Amino acid sequence: MPNESHQTRIRVRYAETDQMGVVYYANYLVWMEVGRVEYCKALGFRYKDMELEDGVLLAVIEAQCRYLFPARFDEDVMIETCVAEANSRIVSFGYEMRLIDGRKLATGSTRHIFCNREMKPVRLPAKYRALFGM
Amino acid sequence: MPNESHQTRIRVRYAETDQMGVVYYANYLVWMEVGRVEYCKALGFRYKDMELEDGVLLAVIEAQCRYLFPARFDEDVMIETCVAEANSRIVSFGYEMRLIDGRKLATGSTRHIFCNREMKPVRLPAKYRALFGM
Amino acid sequence: MPNESHQTRIRVRYAETDQMGVVYYANYLVWMEVGRVEYCKALGFRYKDMELEDGVLLAVIEAQCRYLFPARFDEDVMIETCVAEANSRIVSFGYEMRLIDGRKLATGSTRHIFCNREMKPVRLPAKYRALFGM
Amino acid sequence: MPNESHQTRIRVRYAETDQMGVVYYANYLVWMEVGRVEYCKALGFRYKDMELEDGVLLAVIEAQCRYLFPARFDEDVMIETCVAEANSRIVSFGYEMRLIDGRKLATGSTRHIFCNREMKPVRLPAKYRALFGM
Repeated sequence: MPNESHQTRIRVRYAETDQMGVVYYANYLVWMEVGRVEYCKALGFRYKDMELEDGVLLAVIEAQCRYLFPARFDEDVMIETCVAEANSRIVSFGYEMRLIDGRKLATGSTRHIFCNREMKPVRLPAKYRALFGM
Repeated sequence: MPNESHQTRIRVRYAETDQMGVVYYANYLVWMEVGRVEYCKALGFRYKDMELEDGVLLAVIEAQCRYLFPARFDEDVMIETCVAEANSRIVSFGYEMRLIDGRKLATGSTRHIFCNREMKPVRLPAKYRALFGM
Repeated sequence: MPNESHQTRIRVRYAETDQMGVVYYANYLVWMEVGRVEYCKALGFRYKDMELEDGVLLAVIEAQCRYLFPARFDEDVMIETCVAEANSRIVSFGYEMRLIDGRKLATGSTRHIFCNREMKPVRLPAKYRALFGM
Repeated sequence: MPNESHQTRIRVRYAETDQMGVVYYANYLVWMEVGRVEYCKALGFRYKDMELEDGVLLAVIEAQCRYLFPARFDEDVMIETCVAEANSRIVSFGYEMRLIDGRKLATGSTRHIFCNREMKPVRLPAKYRALFGM
């Protein structure tokens, strides 16, 4: 499944809006995390287990988001996630967030290094490499 | 200083508002946490150190808040924190949140048990007891 | 459907955890909001429309939560919501949050008054009363 | 003061950490908002008033953050904010977040368009232009 994308659906929470009446901009990064976690599940592993069992963490080194159209309370949002780049030290994800009717809300990307629990960079264990298409 | 209260000041963030134009209700619990941490500092210890050095965590077992008047973006809020009850297993804090002009926004309370890192209940180490007025 | 309860399912986000390794306590109030909004849908109306079309807001006047067992990242949580009390001025909700295996995480309640956009108390419009079992 | 930068100080909240033991990545965007609001005050106006009195909102169209070193609970963080670009339709801010000892945590930027309450693009009212160095 590498090179393919995965879709996850979330519903906008009241908590995620701000006084502008739309979703607060930092929450799109939370949605990207939701997309990323579900993408890993679709790849065949649970991010949780990689952290707990193998002590490998995905530390964010860069995040970026372009906001195209504001999302509002109670709307259903489709998050499409793909892996843009992956090697044994770094993985980059790309994201598109859309309303169910197709309207594009935002696009984004995050870049991560694999770390141990002490936040030191490590190489991704071999068993995960094929999953990321390496 | 036990039985006394401690005041901390925060400014309402845009992120903390919701589409009602006021602070989202869950954020008052975040403010109580801010009050609690600063209260501990005033008592003479850093909550961070208690966690890191002694492996003692304050796990919340109950929280309650009464909302009297809505806080709005960019307002300065005074959080007054006191210890309502403390023994070697449990500590309860009380909170009052006010605008700088004195208008009362909310009152709340939280109740905690002392835990180790595995979230098992422990007794508060002796060195902290006097600080909590025991 | 009044007097009955409604169940909604959410999955714990990484964003919702804190350095204790469990869900941060204020996030349970966000989950209660999710349960409340979906409960209203099950009753036959969208909270969003009540706000937008009728200008009626549910302002929280009290919230309370008892924490029984810590929720962790990526767990599926069932939120069960019911109306505990409702009249033309006030509505109270009760909540139970459980893991899918049945383990109870937390119970809570919120109490709300109906307000207009200026945050002044109003009576609930007649068309909504039957829905709340009045 | 345009072309100059402004510094604001915040303290890391427990709520801002995640189970990795460091600040969750989306919260840096909240800190940028805090920096931006305080920067506007230093420029001589309150963002709140621009929104309330003039109906001019700063809608984010792009945000970016590079994470250099993880911030932890209870650390004091200095947020340095500057205006990178400003015209009557768009304003871009740059941010640097540092520990008090000087260690750089993150750099970021946000790009905004001026909007009315209906989220339609507008030109910045003349009275604000000089403040932004136009």
